[in-house]
This record gives sequence, C-alpha cells and structure tokens, in this order.
Amino acid sequence: MGAAIPNRITVGIFGGSGYSGRELSRWLSRHPRARVEFSTGSAAPHIPHEDGLSRRVDVYFLCLPHVTSAAYVEKLRKAQPRSLIVDLSGDLRLRTEASYKRWYEHDHGAPALLAQAVFGLTEVFRADIPGAKLISNPGCYATSAMLPLLPLIKDGLVDSEDIIVDAKSGASGAGRSLREDLLFCEVEGNFSIYSQGRRHRHIGEIEETIERCTGVRPVLTFSPHLLPVERGILSAIYVRTPRSVDELRSALARYYEGAPFVRLVDSAPKLKDVNHTNLCLMSVHEGAPGRAIVVSALDNLVKGASGQAIQNMNVALGFDETEGLL
Amino acid sequence: MGAAIPNRITVGIFGGSGYSGRELSRWLSRHPRARVEFSTGSAAPHIPHEDGLSRRVDVYFLCLPHVTSAAYVEKLRKAQPRSLIVDLSGDLRLRTEASYKRWYEHDHGAPALLAQAVFGLTEVFRADIPGAKLISNPGCYATSAMLPLLPLIKDGLVDSEDIIVDAKSGASGAGRSLREDLLFCEVEGNFSIYSQGRRHRHIGEIEETIERCTGVRPVLTFSPHLLPVERGILSAIYVRTPRSVDELRSALARYYEGAPFVRLVDSAPKLKDVNHTNLCLMSVHEGAPGRAIVVSALDNLVKGASGQAIQNMNVALGFDETEGLL
Amino acid sequence: MGAAIPNRITVGIFGGSGYSGRELSRWLSRHPRARVEFSTGSAAPHIPHEDGLSRRVDVYFLCLPHVTSAAYVEKLRKAQPRSLIVDLSGDLRLRTEASYKRWYEHDHGAPALLAQAVFGLTEVFRADIPGAKLISNPGCYATSAMLPLLPLIKDGLVDSEDIIVDAKSGASGAGRSLREDLLFCEVEGNFSIYSQGRRHRHIGEIEETIERCTGVRPVLTFSPHLLPVERGILSAIYVRTPRSVDELRSALARYYEGAPFVRLVDSAPKLKDVNHTNLCLMSVHEGAPGRAIVVSALDNLVKGASGQAIQNMNVALGFDETEGLL
Amino acid sequence: MGAAIPNRITVGIFGGSGYSGRELSRWLSRHPRARVEFSTGSAAPHIPHEDGLSRRVDVYFLCLPHVTSAAYVEKLRKAQPRSLIVDLSGDLRLRTEASYKRWYEHDHGAPALLAQAVFGLTEVFRADIPGAKLISNPGCYATSAMLPLLPLIKDGLVDSEDIIVDAKSGASGAGRSLREDLLFCEVEGNFSIYSQGRRHRHIGEIEETIERCTGVRPVLTFSPHLLPVERGILSAIYVRTPRSVDELRSALARYYEGAPFVRLVDSAPKLKDVNHTNLCLMSVHEGAPGRAIVVSALDNLVKGASGQAIQNMNVALGFDETEGLL
Repeated sequence: MGAAIPNRITVGIFGGSGYSGRELSRWLSRHPRARVEFSTGSAAPHIPHEDGLSRRVDVYFLCLPHVTSAAYVEKLRKAQPRSLIVDLSGDLRLRTEASYKRWYEHDHGAPALLAQAVFGLTEVFRADIPGAKLISNPGCYATSAMLPLLPLIKDGLVDSEDIIVDAKSGASGAGRSLREDLLFCEVEGNFSIYSQGRRHRHIGEIEETIERCTGVRPVLTFSPHLLPVERGILSAIYVRTPRSVDELRSALARYYEGAPFVRLVDSAPKLKDVNHTNLCLMSVHEGAPGRAIVVSALDNLVKGASGQAIQNMNVALGFDETEGLL
Repeated sequence: MGAAIPNRITVGIFGGSGYSGRELSRWLSRHPRARVEFSTGSAAPHIPHEDGLSRRVDVYFLCLPHVTSAAYVEKLRKAQPRSLIVDLSGDLRLRTEASYKRWYEHDHGAPALLAQAVFGLTEVFRADIPGAKLISNPGCYATSAMLPLLPLIKDGLVDSEDIIVDAKSGASGAGRSLREDLLFCEVEGNFSIYSQGRRHRHIGEIEETIERCTGVRPVLTFSPHLLPVERGILSAIYVRTPRSVDELRSALARYYEGAPFVRLVDSAPKLKDVNHTNLCLMSVHEGAPGRAIVVSALDNLVKGASGQAIQNMNVALGFDETEGLL
Repeated sequence: MGAAIPNRITVGIFGGSGYSGRELSRWLSRHPRARVEFSTGSAAPHIPHEDGLSRRVDVYFLCLPHVTSAAYVEKLRKAQPRSLIVDLSGDLRLRTEASYKRWYEHDHGAPALLAQAVFGLTEVFRADIPGAKLISNPGCYATSAMLPLLPLIKDGLVDSEDIIVDAKSGASGAGRSLREDLLFCEVEGNFSIYSQGRRHRHIGEIEETIERCTGVRPVLTFSPHLLPVERGILSAIYVRTPRSVDELRSALARYYEGAPFVRLVDSAPKLKDVNHTNLCLMSVHEGAPGRAIVVSALDNLVKGASGQAIQNMNVALGFDETEGLL
Repeated sequence: MGAAIPNRITVGIFGGSGYSGRELSRWLSRHPRARVEFSTGSAAPHIPHEDGLSRRVDVYFLCLPHVTSAAYVEKLRKAQPRSLIVDLSGDLRLRTEASYKRWYEHDHGAPALLAQAVFGLTEVFRADIPGAKLISNPGCYATSAMLPLLPLIKDGLVDSEDIIVDAKSGASGAGRSLREDLLFCEVEGNFSIYSQGRRHRHIGEIEETIERCTGVRPVLTFSPHLLPVERGILSAIYVRTPRSVDELRSALARYYEGAPFVRLVDSAPKLKDVNHTNLCLMSVHEGAPGRAIVVSALDNLVKGASGQAIQNMNVALGFDETEGLL
C-alpha cells in the first residue's frame, strides 16, 4: 500500500472461531472494501495459525489468546512487514514490561513490540492511527471506562483518585472457553461479581492510558460482573466532582463532537440500544452531593472488540471511519 | 392468641396473584404450623379484597400496592383487632408523613399507622417483634443495603456520607404490572439502570432506618438496575473506610452471630447461592486504598419480601424463626 | 416508476414501533437503494397513520394489526395508486371472504382486495411479483411450514392428509402487546404450547396456499409453542411417506436451486444459524418406518416478516433479490 | 431394616455435584425422615466414590454416569446387602444385554443386575417397589412419554405403531458436562433439535417398558429438543386414534386416580406449572380428524430424576409416597 487510499483490500483472521473472531468475520463480510481471504483456527476448512503467516493480505486481525498473540505478531512483522496488523489480545495494550508483568503475572514474550504498537482507542488516538502498521485494540471493559473518563480527567473535572467503575458484561466477554462457570445452567438466571477491587487486568490498561493522555494517573476501584446475556457492557462510573452534571455533559459532548460512534444521550443507555452496533453511548446523572454517575454502554464484541478493530483499520488505511460499520 | 405459643395458626393473604403473593402462598403451603384460609385477588375462586376483612384468621399478609395497602391495614385493624397484620407494601416503612410525602409524592392516607408499625427487618428489630400486631415488611432493595450497612455504620467503621449502592434486581421486583418495559422481548438480553442517584423510594427507607438504629444519618448514591432474570438482588456497596477489610468482616460476623439467615461468606455470593432461599449472604473485599466493597445477595421474593414476612410472623408468634423457611 | 429499474427509491412504514416495524426500519437503513421517508406510530416525531396517506413514496410497508391494515391498504390504493404496497398483516393472505371469516372470526372489511394481492412467499410466487402493486406478506409460522411442505406435496411424495407441524416461536412473534402472558417473568424459564390442533390462523393460510399451488389440499395438525427467546421459529414437520429421506432431500434441493435464502442443510438447523438473517434452512431426517421429519428454521422477524417483505420489494421493483439483505 | 417402617433413615449420595445430585441433596435436606450422611464427588469435603462403599447407610442414591454407575451398584450390593440402592443412571433401565447394547452401543458391565432391578416408574410399578433393594430410576424424557402413553396403549385406544413424541428439555438434562454446545453463549437465545428419529436412548426404555406392561410394543418417532431454560420437559405426543378426546382423557384420569403427582388438567400445562415440583401434568387435545395431541410436562430434575428417586424410596420403605416432596 502506498500513499493512495486502496480501493479494495484483503484481510486474514487469526483465531476465527472464538466469539470475537466470528463477530469480526460477520462484520467484514458486509464491509464494501474488504474481502476475508482466510481465517485460522476455524472448523472447515481448518487452517492452522502457522499457515496464515505465509498468506499475504493487506490486513491481519489477531483474535488469539494473549501470549500466543504476541508470538504471532512478532512472526507476522517479519514475514509480512508491509501489512497492517491489528491485535485484539491484551498483549500490546500496556506500555512497559513491568506493567505487563504486574497485570498479566508473567514476562512478556516480545517486549520490543510494546513501544511499537499504536493504542487503538480510535476516538482518542485518531491522529496516531493513519499509516500505522501495528495497532493494539483496547479491551472491552477498558473501552467502556476510558471513553467516558478520559475527557473528564483531562479537563480536571473529577477527583482522579476516587473513581469507582461498576461494570457488567455479557458472557461472551469471557470467550469461548470450556469453563464450568460458563455453562448455560450456571449463567442463566444468575448474576455475579468477580475480580472485584484492584485485580482485573483492564485496570492497568485504563489507568496507564489515561495517564499517558492526560498526565494524571487515576486510581480505580473496579468491579466486573457477569450478566446472563450474550453480549453488551454497561458501566456505572461513580465520580467525585465539584462540578454540575451539565458541566460534565458539556465536556463529553465537546470531546466527542463529530465522533460517529460515541454519543452523549439524556436517558441512561441500555444494552439493547448498543448491541449489534459499534456505538458507545454515555449519559451523566446526579448522585449524592458532590457525586455524579456516568453511565456508558457498548457491545463488547463490536465497539469492545471487532467493530473497533475495523474502525481502526478504516482510519489506518484512510477509509471513511464508518465504512462497513453502519 | 394468648401468651402461649399457638400450635397451629390460620392465615389470609390480600393480593395473592402478584409475584410476592404467589411466593408467599408457596412458602406458607409448606409451613408446618400455618394454613392459608383465603387469598384475595386470585383467579379461582375469586375473592374480592373487601371480603377478606370479615374472614377472621390469626395472621393477615398484605401483598397490595401502596395506598391500597394502608387503607386495608386500617380496616383490618378495626375489623380484626386481635390478629397480626404483616404489610408487605411501602406504606408503613417510613416514620413520618413528611418523609412519606417526600418519597411517595402524595399524602399518606392513614398517617396514624406510621407510628404503630414495627419495622420488620427481623435481624435488627428482633426485640420489637414478639407480640407485635402490625409489622411493616422492609423493601427488597432496602433489605439488601441495610443488612450490610447497619452494623458498619453503627460501629462507626465507614464514612456514612459517601456510600454508593450499585444494586441489580430481577424483574419480579417490579411486580406483575402490564408495562411495556417489562415485556419479555424488552428485558431478555437487555440490562439497564434506572432511577439512579437520589430518586428511588428505598433511599428514604434505608437512610431513615439506619439513622433510627445508629443515630447517624447516611447519605446514599443509589443505582438500581434491571437484570434479565426472574429473581434475586445483588448489591455492590462501596464504602470509604480507614479500617481493614478484616475489621469490617468482624463487625458483620459479630452482629449477625446466631442469625439463621444472614451469613458472612468469603467469596462474593452469586444470585444462585440465595435464590429460592431466605438467606442474605454478604462478603467484604478490598477496593482502592481507603475503599472497601461490600457485596450482598438475597432473593427479592423471599428474604426481600415473602420469606422475611414469614420470618417476622414466626418471631411475632413465638415460633422458631426458621419454621417453614428451610 | 416505469419499465426501467429505479436506482433509488423512497419508502414509508405504517406501524414502525412494533417488533416487525422496528426490524424493517433497521434493515431498510442498510438497504443501498432505499430511503425511509417516514414511519407512523413511532415515538419521536410521532406521525399518525392518517398522515402517512398523503406522503407519496415509492413503497409502503404496512406493519399494522389486521383489520386496521386492510383499511389502510384500501385508502392507500386510492391515494397513491402508482406505489407498491407490501402488507405484513394477515388481512390479505387468504383468498376468499369465507375463508377469512372462518379463520379470523369476523367479516373482511375490504373483500375486493383479496383477489388483488399477490401472495409474497417469494420463492414460490416469484413469477407473479415483478410489477405487482399489492403484495401480501406471508405469516411467520406459515412461511416456516409452507417452504418445506410445498415441494414435497407438489411432487406427491408425502401423505397430504397426515401432516403434523410442531412449531416453536420466539416471543416477538406475538408482537409488542401488553399481555400478562408476555411479561418477562412469565416467559423466562418457561415454555408452553398454545392454540394446538386446528385452531391457529396460519393453518388456513398454509392449507389454502398449498392447495392453490399444487392442487392438493393438505390437512394439518399444528402446534405452535412459545419459546423463551426473542426471535426465531424452528418447526419439526412429521410426514408420512413411502419415499426415502434422500428422495425428499432431492425434491427440496431441486425446488430451491438458485434461491439465495432457502437452503437444504445436512444437520438440523438451529435458531442461531438463521437469526438476524433472511435465511430459511431446512433438513430432512428419518423417523420410524414410513415417517420422515423435516426441520425448518427461520427468523420470524426477518424471513418470517420484514426480510421477506424487503425481498418481495426487491423482486417487485427489479432489484437484485438479495439487495440489502446480506 | 425389618418389617416395621423405620422412623428415620440415613442416606448416602454417589455423585452429589452434578445437577441431579445437587437437586437430590436439596430435596433430601427437607425430607422429615431422611438425613444425608455423605455425598461423594462434591467439592468440600471431597469424598471419593470408593470411600462411599464402606459407609453404611439405609439408602444409597447413585447419580453417576452410566457404566460407572453399574460398577458401583455391583460393589454396593456386595458391601451393603441390606441397604436400598436407587440408581439414577441409564444402566439398569433396559431388561436385556442385547437391548442395552443396541441403545448404549457397548456391552453391559454387570448384566446380572438387569433382571434384579425394579423399574421405578412409581405410578406404574408401585406394587413391585415396597421392600425392593434395587430400583432403577427412569429417564427424564422416558417418564414424560411413558406416563401419558402407557394407559392409552394398555386400553388399546391409540395406534401403537404411529406415535410421535416431540419433546423439549431444559439444558440441565444434558448434565454438568464441559461441552462447547452447553456454554451459555451457545444455548441462550437458541433452540435446536437433536438425535431426532430413532436415535435417542430413551426410545428403547419407553418401548420396552410399555411392551412389558401392556403386551404391545409401540413404535416411536422421537425428537428431543434443547430449550434455553435450566429445567423442565414439555412433550407434545401425537397419536392416531378412532376415539374422542374425552375417551382418552377418561382413560388417563382413571389410571392415575389417587396418584398424588400425576394429574390430568384441562389447559395444556406449561413448564412453570411443574418446575420445582414432583408433578407430571398432562392434557389431551383434538388434532386433525383421527389425531389427538397429548401434552405432558414435568421437571426433568424432579419427577424426571431426583424427586421420583425419593418417591421410590418412600414407597420402598413404607413411608407416605409424598413425604418430603410437597
């Protein structure tokens, strides 16, 4: 690819059988400029990941578990240096080896990549994405928290040291793993909190990214929950603020003016407002004195994974940002 | 009924066709000492509420909408002065007319009753219940918040002015009303926050009751959510505290020592741990520095309504507290 | 519109707030040649149905209850005689007043229309649709039964007098009506059979249509069921046949050769294979000797309603049949 | 245990962590005469199955996979010859090695047991159960089909060679196995047919049992389906009959007169009418001429497994049949 915007591109997917891989295939099949050439890890025909390395396409999407993903990014960078790689795993979201080790609890297999990847929170890093060759796609919970928090912290409107994110996600967020706690009879009619406090990996991603963008490192109390639905994340974010709800709203509206997929709404969004779309909707509400509640909703498989990956590809290649995503 | 503990009692239900009325019937049908004599508002045979007034039984349970409920409590107190009345509506949970008007947005129809009702949060008001003739059964969300918060505030362990209750309830909490937002196709696969901030009626009940018990009036930010499940409430309660998680745990364990239905557990409880039981399980977890997370879970139709109503009846009549509830 | 195929068309929806109306809006918003000009009955801005009559568009879709729908078809035929009308109600699916009265239990309000409407089971009546001005869109259950049965009866492969259709539908098939049996707490975790035997209206539509196409009037035992899912119909059709399963398969494969949305598959289709698509998948399996089982699956809101309506529009206007439906 | 009816008994469960094992524990914990002494295979404290062999109790319930179950029955018969064994697996439901091999596709490990076990379809084999030492608990689908079919075939009211059973079961029927098709994201919002025709093992159990009781061997077309609910089986059974629906109803009512858990009802039963109870409800409806539809509903974990196991224990030991089951 040169300076000119390509008309049509070819795409390869690593790990096409998981929930985000399947979602990605579905959206790409409707993308007017992309054609999926291969998908590894799927059923029929089965293509081993290793085979994907030699199949040249314009864009590679990696929907692989972390650790495995970094290894394939490294191989692909060598084998196909002119192609764009979008990594949907957690391997390249943090900026330092130390931080990766803190949150993923083992050494990073390819630490040199950490500095090379552009962080694909599209609305925030839009300027860095055009022409990028390696994009790290953000986490689903992280997207749901960073999009509303970033503008508020940047403008100094909220106490960055007392932020509570109470987030609820559909079961597809846990991937297609054979775990007893993901069986239908365990999840249906049930609801649970897990990894509450300071334990979930996305905390590192959220705090580090916000610090990088704003110079202020926030401190989160973060509670993920497992909803008995297939998809969708709704986060209630409790912030301490001397400002009025209207001021917070204005800051968000201003920051996302012109962004096609992030919108401030009046009534709190529901999962059904965002599921099967690439939207992130947010609203702000009054809490007790000195407290505001920011609600954000997105589809973890779309804006939280595959949709944002395509959005990043669109921006990287010079396509319209919404191509194939409406 | 005299001073002796009765062996067998008769029971009448007003409003037996709603979700808490039906749940109450089911539990009472297994109670070894109670026999349901009539249930008004049900299908077959249909008995109008008015007819229930002249049917003498030992205990009346009122599963009626507020306003209607207070009117029947007043009539029953006159018609059947020797019987026990357990009111499951919101009409008698607050202590003053002003407070009722603030939260229910109209005048109370029988304000004299407010001072006469014992508040049936059994574990907390156990001393007041034996021999009572009028018991106001607490709200479901309120029970889920008051049980964990009360001991912590009483012992001065948490900042009472910065409490966030992020509560999630199954759809039966909204009752059996013909509302479009309660249709299957609206709730299934969906999740939403509503009445967030300082708008839900149970805030009044929680703050007032805790103040009455502890002398300290807490200030809540309260966010109820609608879960796509039939039953169950899970609340994540964020408190600011200089104390360790272990100190909070000890306070709760101490307060509920010997209570058969309230238990402190190590791992955060899930809805399936409490649904179809009269249990309220709670756990405490570390948040960001100076923050702790208290999780509580109960079945809104059982400990949050009908089960606690029976528990109150048991205590009021001198039965074993767990009779018919295991 | 003349003989030439139009490049872009305008569309109006009557009854845009129900489940099929909303689904139709969503699909049309992605249709590359259609632009929705108005939608009546929706929230904001609210446009009364009556106002739609004077707004000239190329195609009107009527997602209205029966009786109401026929009245608006009649008015639109006068007010906008050059436009195409696609009626999604049951009003124009039967061919005679007597038959309508038998199944809908009252007189038809505009009986002259019955003979004028083309029956929009696209794959079967494709030859009649180009240029049509009035199309009656088939019922969801009816589509799910007619598509597999029609070729088998036409070829004389099955005993037309002993056909059992055991059909299961998601709750959106009942529409967005405020009925107690459609509340979340009634449908969730539940499953039920209703109108079993010879009572459901779609029996008339199925038997009459098959007779019209094949000369043979079948006799059905039909059992609709309510599934605790939002969307999708899966029908198990039990036929008596002297033929092998392979012969039945061949007949179906032959009949639907080239049809883009109807496919014979080897393993029985599941709802998730068809939901959110315009596909009808079918499979044939061996039963007890002399018995075969035909399984069909479709999304009641897409191939069973809005998708087939757009498919009919595409064929009527000379567009590619799949335009906007992939 | 001698001839006298014991007042209180001790019980052991093999395989207490699966869905029927857990359900059994729950019901037994409420049984006024039974006390669970141990449960193998559960989490804490973990007791290996082998240890259960030496723990003497009055009644052993085996909730183990087939093959494993027969092996433990054999060992228990030797180790604890005076105790009652209730086997919930499929190992002892068929009467001959050949039949077992036909349906389970391997040799039986302990064929001598086949003739020793009483078949625990309580209502039908009630006379054989008192004093039995080995009871084979029927399958869930099989119970749902045999209870309505047996009286009709016994009285010669239906064509035994043309019976279609279209059965739908909740996901707990498949047990707590780590299978991808049982993950929440696969089952939720989905519905599917499987093992349709003549492939499901319960066909052997149904046909053989009915033949043993009536002398007539029926031939079934049987279609199991997977419902997106935790529990419950609803079967629509299509029979060919020259008799009126009323005659069929009378035969069923007569056969189950006095049976506390099997009831004929007028409107077709729903899953919510039977779930969490030991009931099997049935109804009869008119189909096309010469056809009737029999609907039956039961909770697969209760009347289809653990509840019927307790019912069998009650009858075997001389307790009231309903003890602990209301």
